[in-house]
Order: sequence, then C-alpha cells, then structure tokens
Amino acid sequence: MAKLYFKYGVMGSSKTAQALITKFNYEERGMTVWLIKPSVDDRDGVDFLKSRIGLSQKATVILPDQSIREAYRNAGEHDVIIADESQFFTPEQIDELRELVDEKDLPVLCFGLRTDFLTNFFPGSRRLMELADSITELKTVCSCGAKATVNARIDADGKVVTKGAQFLLGGNDAYVAMCHSCWRKRIREQGE
Amino acid sequence: MAKLYFKYGVMGSSKTAQALITKFNYEERGMTVWLIKPSVDDRDGVDFLKSRIGLSQKATVILPDQSIREAYRNAGEHDVIIADESQFFTPEQIDELRELVDEKDLPVLCFGLRTDFLTNFFPGSRRLMELADSITELKTVCSCGAKATVNARIDADGKVVTKGAQFLLGGNDAYVAMCHSCWRKRIREQGE
Amino acid sequence: MAKLYFKYGVMGSSKTAQALITKFNYEERGMTVWLIKPSVDDRDGVDFLKSRIGLSQKATVILPDQSIREAYRNAGEHDVIIADESQFFTPEQIDELRELVDEKDLPVLCFGLRTDFLTNFFPGSRRLMELADSITELKTVCSCGAKATVNARIDADGKVVTKGAQFLLGGNDAYVAMCHSCWRKRIREQGE
Amino acid sequence: MAKLYFKYGVMGSSKTAQALITKFNYEERGMTVWLIKPSVDDRDGVDFLKSRIGLSQKATVILPDQSIREAYRNAGEHDVIIADESQFFTPEQIDELRELVDEKDLPVLCFGLRTDFLTNFFPGSRRLMELADSITELKTVCSCGAKATVNARIDADGKVVTKGAQFLLGGNDAYVAMCHSCWRKRIREQGE
Repeated sequence: MAKLYFKYGVMGSSKTAQALITKFNYEERGMTVWLIKPSVDDRDGVDFLKSRIGLSQKATVILPDQSIREAYRNAGEHDVIIADESQFFTPEQIDELRELVDEKDLPVLCFGLRTDFLTNFFPGSRRLMELADSITELKTVCSCGAKATVNARIDADGKVVTKGAQFLLGGNDAYVAMCHSCWRKRIREQGE
Repeated sequence: MAKLYFKYGVMGSSKTAQALITKFNYEERGMTVWLIKPSVDDRDGVDFLKSRIGLSQKATVILPDQSIREAYRNAGEHDVIIADESQFFTPEQIDELRELVDEKDLPVLCFGLRTDFLTNFFPGSRRLMELADSITELKTVCSCGAKATVNARIDADGKVVTKGAQFLLGGNDAYVAMCHSCWRKRIREQGE
Repeated sequence: MAKLYFKYGVMGSSKTAQALITKFNYEERGMTVWLIKPSVDDRDGVDFLKSRIGLSQKATVILPDQSIREAYRNAGEHDVIIADESQFFTPEQIDELRELVDEKDLPVLCFGLRTDFLTNFFPGSRRLMELADSITELKTVCSCGAKATVNARIDADGKVVTKGAQFLLGGNDAYVAMCHSCWRKRIREQGE
Repeated sequence: MAKLYFKYGVMGSSKTAQALITKFNYEERGMTVWLIKPSVDDRDGVDFLKSRIGLSQKATVILPDQSIREAYRNAGEHDVIIADESQFFTPEQIDELRELVDEKDLPVLCFGLRTDFLTNFFPGSRRLMELADSITELKTVCSCGAKATVNARIDADGKVVTKGAQFLLGGNDAYVAMCHSCWRKRIREQGE
C-alpha cells in the first residue's frame, strides 16, 4: 500500500537535493516521477527546483487555487509524485495528495519546512503533519553542534527577528537554522 | 543536550504502556521521573495512568490553567519528565515543557494522540509537532494489515462519525484505529 | 508486502514487554500471533516470556536444530510471528523466517539483543542485521544519561569482565547496560 | 555526546551523494570535515568520491593496514569525520573510529553497503552494525515498488549470480538493487 511521506527539515537541510536524488533513484528503476512545487515560492524562477549544492530540475508549478488532482490528470499517470516546498501548499491541496495516495495506490513524497521563524506551522506543513503515513526529519547542525530545528529570521543588524509576517518575500540570506536553545538564548541576550 | 520528545500514536497503540515502561527503565538506572498528565482526561480517576495491558501508575495531574513550570518547582528536581495524554495540554504548557528542556537540560518525553476523529490536531499535539526535537510514531495495525493512523469515532450503529465535538466525554469503546484508506472507504460506503 | 523486523536493544530495554504489547495490539484487531523463542534461554522456565515490568505469556520454544518452517506448519496459519530472544536463533532459522516473510507475505517481528558483553554479534542477531527489512532500536539510558548500547558483564567484585564465553548460564544480574564511552572508561580505570 | 553513525544502503541508494551533502551542510556552519574512504575501492581514481547524480569531492584514502587514528593525527583536528564506502574498512579501523568518537567527542558518520551479493556482511559493515550508536537506512526502490535491500550480482546473460568472491573488481554495472522477495524469485526461476 502506497504512503504519504513528509520529509521535513530546516532551511539548509538539503530538502531540494534530497527531492532530486529521490527522483533520480526512482527514474533509474524505470519509474516515472511527477515533480511539483507550489507557486508561492518563486525564488528560482517560475518552474525550477535548485539545491544549494548545485542540483537543479524543472518542476510543474501548482497555483494556490489549483486542484492538484486535476493537474495530475492532465499530466498523465506517473509512478510517484515528489513535491518540494510543500509547506506552501494549501491544506486542501494536501488533502488531495492524500486522496491520490489512497485511491490510486500512488506514493507521494513531500519535502518541506516544518515551521516558520516563530516556530509555528505553515498551512501545508500542518496538514502534512496531521495526515502523513511517514514523518522523517532531514537533519542539519546548529553552529553549537546540536541538531538545528528553528529557522531563525535575522535582520540587517544580525538580530533575531521575533515579529513579522510568516512569509517574507526575499530569500534565504535572512535565515539561519539553529537549535531551539541557541535561538532562545540569542533572543534573551538581545534584551527582548 | 536534553531533548523534547513527542511519541505519538493512535488509540490502542500502547502509549500509556510505553510511558510506564520508559519510567521503569529510567528508575532502574537510579534516575527520578516526574510522571504527569493533563486533567481533562479523567477516564481512569483523577490521577492514574492505566494501560489496557494491565500496567498502572499514579501521576501528577496538571490543570489546563496551571503552570507546569510552577508545578515542577513544587515537585522538586527530577532527572526526566514523562507525560501521557499530552495532546490535551495547552500550547502554553507545551511551551513551558520546551523551556524546561532548554534551561534545565532536562529530557521531556510526551506520549499522546496525534489527531482527533477527523484527522485534525489537538492543541497540545499541534504544538508538540511544531516544537519537538524528536518525533516518533508508536505503531499499531489496521484490521486490513496496514498501519493504523486515524482514530475513527464509531456511533452506536457501527457507523463512522464525521461530525461532532473534538473531545467526547465517554471513553475508548467509541473509537477504532484504522488506516486512512479504510477510514475513507467506510465513510464512502456509508453514502456520505 | 510483509516485512522482517529486527527490534534490538540492550538488556533492560524492555524487549520482552514490547514483544508482548505488540502481540496484544495484533490480537485486539482480531489477528492471530504465533509467539516463539529459542530454547537456549531457559531463564523463565521452558516456555514462558516474562518481562521485568510484570507481563508474561506462554511461547512456543524452538530448539537449535529444529526447523521453524516445520514448526510453523504444525502450529497452523497465523497472521504474524513474534519472536523474543532472537539473538539465540541459528542463522539458518533466521533464513527460514526470511522465507516465511517472502513466501507467505507474513510479517515476522524479532526482538533481541544486538551484541554480547564484548560488543560482538550473536549468531541470530548477526543474520537478522543482514536480512531484516526494518531495523529499529529499543532504547534505554546509561546511568550517565546517554543511550546505553553495550551489555557490560560484571563479576562478583563489580568489575567489568573482558574475557569469557559469549553465553553465560546464569542470569541477568551479572549485566549492566551502559554507553560505549562509560564501558571503555570503566575498563581503562580497572587498569586493563 | 558525539555518536558513531552508520548510514547504510544498497547500491544506487545515493550514499555518496548523501555523504557529500552532509559535508556541505557541516561546512556551511563553519565546521571542518575530514572526508575519507578505504583504498580498496578504486572505482573513481585513487582519491575521489563521485556520486552518480554528479557530485564529486576529493577524499583522503585509507589503506587496509593503515591506522585511522594516526592518519587523523596527521590530518589535524576537525569537527567531524565523514567516511564513504565504509564496508571496506577493516574491523580494526572501525574500532579506531569508535575510539575517536568516545575519546575526542568527535562525530563520525559512516556511509556504506550493508551486505554483499549473497546477503552477507562485509567486514566493515559488520563491525559498524555491532558498534554504531545510530543505524539508519538510505532507501531506494526495487523495480516492483518495494524497498530494495539486496545487491544482486548479474552476469553477462542477465542471470543473478549465486556464487563467487565477495569483492569483484570491476564496477557497478554488474549489480542491481532489488527486494529480497524479487531476488529469491529470480534465483528460483533460473532453476537453481
């Protein structure tokens, strides 16, 4: 029986690289992969997944009000769906992915962030954490050596930001992954 | 560095038994365990954890508006905190457990349900899924042989309930753990 | 597709309790479990599995030169096989369990020790580590707070034993689970 | 406390890519990585790690009779050791890596194959499975859709080989990763 997978990690935990390597592995066995991403993340152009280590692939972009089931029907049958930046899907789109798993016995692997810069879920990651059959963490280190779990947002003065919109148009350089303990310590030391 | 653990599972996945076995293992090494549970679940009397397989222990009951940090201070220092039915803690109480982990280097192991009978988070399990350093599933089987992930609520006629309050005073017998696919199938066949 | 599982852990990591809880969970779903153990471990009488926390069940005893496939045929069809003390099966018996998984689509869950008091495999655990589809650790703590991974053998003077037969008739009290670092440190401090 | 990690997988499960991505992640946090491999695998020239997806890095080559501790001393202090093709280290070299973890609180991450084409351990993977604090599988699929766990050796006629030396000088093309059930089935159908 196919499963819905959520493979979550902080920024810089190589989520996109893992998504592309997984695609490579499936294709090497002669299977077909439908590679998708939500449109809200337009960091790399409309339709490209790019990992920091240098891997890159074209992906189908899903708009927030688009039906994934319909898009899948148009794309034709595949052996597996791999999605990156899954935190930005709507809960309804995650429900659709869940239905595809159950009805078509189709594995769906979703890579994405767990939480925002204040440790709150994104809509898509919340629904994935509720519905996934398999939840795995892609790990990376905090500079203290512990596992990083928080996506700290850093302002121009190097301070940890503790207020603001969940989604900040702009890019990666304003975020540093750290462990929860280091994150709290830095906020405390800033005098907030 | 100590961690915040969330060990989640469906009803009947032996969460309470696991909590009590973990306590036993720590104590066998000469460590002290503070065993707690939220008050909202009064299935087994005010202050007892009882597993279906026959294990049982007295636990400190935490009220919804109570500070866990204060209760911990009153209880005295321990080597580890183990909590059962953690889905019923408030998000603020989970934040307090997170602080105890970070500030006192104290391991906190939370056992609990992931989602309610409609696959939505409880307040405590949502916050745990956002903040835990380690997320592990306690597994059990659906009657089809696949892994059970949904806590289906069953009414007196044996039908799967799809509406109603998240928390139903009453007890276990109205719930059956099943896989998502079997759950959807039964709802579909009921003609809803 | 059914799997061969190896759930390993040090002494005192609640392997037997986990085996019995897993049996309980399967049976609660109306499935039948064939509970087995190798004969070489006769700690608890010929045919009983007893966990330190107080759970206990009758199990079918498998002799070293016995065919598990034949014993299974005689026992009649079941939905799942659960084995405790699996480190004491012969490699040939583990191969037979592997065949039952593949040919009958029958899940087989083996609980057991990973290594002996000198960190070397037992024959059964070696073969399980080579063949299992799923390898999971049942964890417990060292008295230093880290995870215990070594089954240290302790003599009457409280010293860590570093020579001797792999299998010592006698019992549990001569073993203490500890982390590798504490184990090495104690051997060093003994002046060996 | 630092750990010894064994991240095992079949051929084609992206072990080298994972090793290089992990190195990238550590270095991005300002940490230094000592990248090593045993000499016996000279597929990619004396001192290069190359992943099929296109990533590649220079690594220090360790000879079978060389002391890793001495080589580490010569290489200078680092924050982490990452090793690829770890199945080809000698058991003594794995013991040395274990000592570095314990004595220097230095994380050591070993990537490698679990078993050979007949499902038997390599010397290095056996010792890692005995000693590792953390054992994780890097997964890939069999062409039937199940998880691949066996490195089947295929001869020029496309037949699964069931006899021969553990280590075959030559290269990847003679191996196909498959699940244990498909592997047995192909051997059976060959009439062996």
